[in-house]
This record gives sequence, structure tokens and C-alpha cells, in this order.
Amino acid sequence: MIERIDAGTRMSEACIHGELVYLAGQVPETPGADIETQTREVLAAIDALLAQAGSDKTRILRAQVYLADVADFAGMNRAWDAWVVAGQAPARATVEARLANPAWKVEIVVTAVR
Amino acid sequence: MIERIDAGTRMSEACIHGELVYLAGQVPETPGADIETQTREVLAAIDALLAQAGSDKTRILRAQVYLADVADFAGMNRAWDAWVVAGQAPARATVEARLANPAWKVEIVVTAVR
Amino acid sequence: MIERIDAGTRMSEACIHGELVYLAGQVPETPGADIETQTREVLAAIDALLAQAGSDKTRILRAQVYLADVADFAGMNRAWDAWVVAGQAPARATVEARLANPAWKVEIVVTAVR
Repeated sequence: MIERIDAGTRMSEACIHGELVYLAGQVPETPGADIETQTREVLAAIDALLAQAGSDKTRILRAQVYLADVADFAGMNRAWDAWVVAGQAPARATVEARLANPAWKVEIVVTAVR
Repeated sequence: MIERIDAGTRMSEACIHGELVYLAGQVPETPGADIETQTREVLAAIDALLAQAGSDKTRILRAQVYLADVADFAGMNRAWDAWVVAGQAPARATVEARLANPAWKVEIVVTAVR
Repeated sequence: MIERIDAGTRMSEACIHGELVYLAGQVPETPGADIETQTREVLAAIDALLAQAGSDKTRILRAQVYLADVADFAGMNRAWDAWVVAGQAPARATVEARLANPAWKVEIVVTAVR
């Protein structure tokens, strides 16, 4: 049994199986905003989906961070560090990758437990 | 207990644990074919492995799509949209990344439930 | 219940839930070393974390390999092939992606069973 959130014709925003929650890659709301703003937007989208799934940011198992420009690493981390709960942080990996929309600077893919 | 499909000396095409199926990155059959053809080939390879694992495309939890050139996003989506079952689509993320063979335009990594 | 290894203020090196072990992206120890050396270092870091989690390299479900330069594919594979246990190899995907530190040539993200 798979539960889905925002199940569309192309993708779902989340698929849930048992206790595991797989989110789609979350992207910024404001094209062209600076990296801190865009990261905050992505993290807010993750918070909202995790809440719908019955989870939260302290129950993320892994986060895969994609930066369109790895020079934004420090800026992404400023927003990340303000958001993450110390001692309950996920395993994480960050790499550079161009994103589907050139106005996006960051995309984050999260797997969590509900 | 891990079950494997096509367990080789370097990698397996799939590892199955409990109900979870982890596929290796699937790549095209025809080097240099256009993006729609290559995406169809990748999706057919995924269908075949999921069938061997006792799963199918309606039970994919997440798909990570890598495009060698993000300009192929629309072409990849034409093949994807024709393949995916509306309302039963996985969580998905798409980023640009050069692939191990320069003749490949797309690679997709899938996690599913059997 | 999530168990964590090296739970820091930004990330954990591993998050464990039930039998599943999610490692953070592992990176080389020696900046600027050649690809075989750096890959061996990354694989040693993975071995060490898996041991702490009560797992080992024969119980990896999937490995995502990021190479800063895909031209290092053969060199990475020399170290990989010497390390992996034939017939018990994980599902794997390898793509090119610039990494957070320009002195790193390879980063590997592993999901395993303990």
C-alpha cells in the first residue's frame, strides 16, 4: 500500500510506504531570489509536506542537496543551519547539478520516517 | 536477507530487502538515439527489472532522473508522461549530470515496493 | 525511533531506522590525492560507518557515486572492484557532479541493511 500526497499526472509530491516517507525534489517558490531565501523556501516546502505525512524535520533520514552553483554552499548552509535541529540532523550529501529551471539555485530530496 | 537481480562482480541490477526494491541506475540501449527514444528504453529496462522483482511502475516510491543536458527536460517528459500512470506516479527529482557514457542522454534510479 | 552516528549540528554521518542504514555522503581524506587513493579512502570511511551501524559492505542496497570528473570512471572502478564482494554488490549509479570541496574527486552515498 502506497499513500501519496498531491498525486498528479506526472509525479506525486510524496509517496509513503509503512513508516517511510519519500518526498519529491523540493524547489524554491521565488525564481531568482538569493540562495538563503530560496533554501528557506525549499525547507518550508519540506516542512509542509512532512507535516502532511505525519512527520517532521527531526525525523529525516537523509537529505540530498543539489546546488546549481556549488559556490552557494555557504549560503545554503546558513539557511540549513538555522533550520535543522542539532543532534537530530539527517545524513546529508551536497553536490552541484544544474536544475530543471535555471531560476532555481537549490533543490532538496528528503527521505523521512513518520 | 538481500535478494539480488543480475548480481555481477561490480554491481547488481537490483537489491531487494523486505518489500523494498532498489534498482541500479538504468541507462539507454541505443547510444546516440534521441531523448524520447532513450527515455523509453530506460523506462522499459525499469519495467523489466520491476517485473522480475515482483513489482511494477505503479509501485515506485521515488525516481531520480539524471539528464546529460537539462535542455532535454521536455523530451524526457514526453516519454515519461506516456509511461507513468496518472495518480500512481512516484515522487521524482530531475537534475543535470554528465553520465558515465557520453552517448547516454538519460539515466534513472528507482526505488519501489514489491 | 532513529539512531544516529556522529550526530552533529549540521548533519549526522548515519541515520538508522529499523534495519535500514542511511549514510551521509562520504568524501576523501586526502585533498588532491589521485582518484584511486581517494576512492579507497571513501570506501574505508563507508566500511567504518557500516561497522558502527552493525552492517558491512555485503549488505549495501544501493550506492550513488558522484565523480567531479567522469573521466575518473575507470580509476574509481579499479578501487571499487578491488573492494566490492562479487555476487554481493549493491545496485549502483554513477554520475558527474562537482563536489562541495574542489579537492575532492569522488563522493559516495550508501544505503544498507544492518
